[in-house]
Amino acid sequence: MKARVTVTLKNGILDPQGKAIEGALKSLGVDGIASVRQGKVFDIELAGADAAKAEAALKDAADKLLANTVIENYRVEVLG
Amino acid sequence: MKARVTVTLKNGILDPQGKAIEGALKSLGVDGIASVRQGKVFDIELAGADAAKAEAALKDAADKLLANTVIENYRVEVLG
Repeated sequence: MKARVTVTLKNGILDPQGKAIEGALKSLGVDGIASVRQGKVFDIELAGADAAKAEAALKDAADKLLANTVIENYRVEVLG
Repeated sequence: MKARVTVTLKNGILDPQGKAIEGALKSLGVDGIASVRQGKVFDIELAGADAAKAEAALKDAADKLLANTVIENYRVEVLG
């Protein structure tokens, strides 16, 4: 079973990495970019075919390791 | 205009970060995870409302900076 966990910064949390990318894009001549915020994406394969069980395992993984839930949100998508 | 650029490793490219996460999840007692591959996601705001122009700017940004196109694929989604 394939799944994707997307981790992004919560609103209001400063993203210095994103700011650096904005600046770099401007100096590379890429126009029209107002703001950039960087996050992480995890493409995960799970054993078994139980979507509910997979979703629970992925939430567990995100809470324990993949996301810092103090400053980050995460979204779990079980793709089947 | 909001858009998202998702950058992931090409198939066949070894992902040591993903391997490390797999091991850590096992030791944290998260079961059923067969494999993990980590990527990047960029949430980008663009000035203007021309979707085609936005898409072109995002491809330019990905080719020049956001992705290493030798080992990474990227996907541009203009969300409107």
